[in-house]
Formats: sequence, C-alpha cells, structure tokens
Amino acid sequence: MPIKINHLAIVVPNLESALAFWHDAIGLELGGREENPGENVNIGFLQIGDSRIELLEPTNNDSGIGRYLEKRGPGMHHLCIEVENLEASMEQLRQKGIELINDTPKIRHEDGIRYCFIHPKSAFGVMVELYELPH
Amino acid sequence: MPIKINHLAIVVPNLESALAFWHDAIGLELGGREENPGENVNIGFLQIGDSRIELLEPTNNDSGIGRYLEKRGPGMHHLCIEVENLEASMEQLRQKGIELINDTPKIRHEDGIRYCFIHPKSAFGVMVELYELPH
Repeated sequence: MPIKINHLAIVVPNLESALAFWHDAIGLELGGREENPGENVNIGFLQIGDSRIELLEPTNNDSGIGRYLEKRGPGMHHLCIEVENLEASMEQLRQKGIELINDTPKIRHEDGIRYCFIHPKSAFGVMVELYELPH
Repeated sequence: MPIKINHLAIVVPNLESALAFWHDAIGLELGGREENPGENVNIGFLQIGDSRIELLEPTNNDSGIGRYLEKRGPGMHHLCIEVENLEASMEQLRQKGIELINDTPKIRHEDGIRYCFIHPKSAFGVMVELYELPH
C-alpha cells in the first residue's frame, strides 16, 4: 500500500522565477536547493504538507530534462509515490502487466533512497516514480 | 500558508483502465466515483496519504477536458492546493502580479468548497487550483 505523495516534479525554464511564484507568491516553504551536475539540473525543494514540490531547471539543452522542456514546454514532469517495500510493489506491478523502466531497484548513494520508474505508457501518460526510504 | 496538496487531477481516456493501474496495480484506495454531467466528466477519487488523485475521463469531445485530452493526450492536468483563507491567498497572488482565471472565489454548492484557478502562464505551465474547505 502506497504511503503518500513523496514529491511532484515540475520542469521550469528558470529556477529563480519559478521560486518567485511557488515561494514568494503561493507561500510554500523553501526546503533547500541542490545543483545536480550529473543530471544537468538545478533543483528547488518546496515543502507542502507532508509532500514536496521539486522544481527542475535544466542547465543543458542536451540533458533529459532539457530535451523535455524543449519538446513539451514547462509543466508537471513526474509524480513520486512513497511505498513501504519497493520490491513488493515492483513485483505486484509486473504481475499486473505494468512495464517498469528499470527492472531492479536503483539506489541513490547519497541518501540510500531506493527507487524505480514506471513507463508512462503503462500509466496513461504519467511518469510515476516509486520511492522506498531507508528504514 | 498553504496546508497541503488537496488533489492532483489526471486526464485519462478510460476510467476503468486507469483504475486498473492506480487501484489494482499501484494499490491506492478507491475513495469513490462521481458522474459530473455538467462538466462532461466521470471522476474516480483515489486516496494517497493526506491527498487524493482524481482521474478525469471526458464523456464528450467538446468539453474542456475532452478537448484537453484530444490536444495534449492523457496526463497530469492540474494541481490543487488547499489553503486556510482563499481570499487572503488570492490577494497575495494579485499583489505579486499573478494572473487569476477567476477574480472572485467560486463556490461549489454541493459541498461548500471555495476555489479559484491560477492562469498556467503565471505558474510556468502548471494549472494550479486553490481550495478553501468550509470551516
């Protein structure tokens, strides 16, 4: 059983302007910023209730997020759902015929989060990420 | 200060197939269904933590949601943020130069929810709805 929305990722052309909207005007608390040169994005984290909004600004037109912005324009990019047991969720999805982008969990070494992505064609156009936090 | 994500609305071509993904495969609890002939949509409500996912299936190609599906394909449609005081939030947004789609709060008579929409061009491509629940 999924626990909650961990985060909703939004692609933006410019992080400062996007923060002027989400932080200054909407009033969401800024949880931090991060430069991720590996993925060619600058990220702004905003807390909203028990979830986060992650603003993704591409730093490079050739990166995945840069190409997404060029092709589709700014907007909601993916929805991340936090689950108790990632492998059990992945097994259940496979049994229901859902296509996963990665067949085994990936691990983020900086924080130990285990994650996978579901193919948008199995999720009616939505890119869904699953997270399992370290226990 | 915003309280939480009230719901994330997703446009789907077929509610039954979308529920097979979100309910049967992902495991979200089905909170209910609703036919809304006024808006020409069938809606499926899924509980996720303290928020909801709302699946919108258009019943008519000429409706707002039907045209959206035809033009943009299925996917995330709008993000609804729950606030304490809608008029105070709207005033703050106007002061920051944010364009609202409706200038005064709308009220849903069946449940007393007060709401407004922010223009996506002020929110970097995201359609943002604000909700104030009846006190």
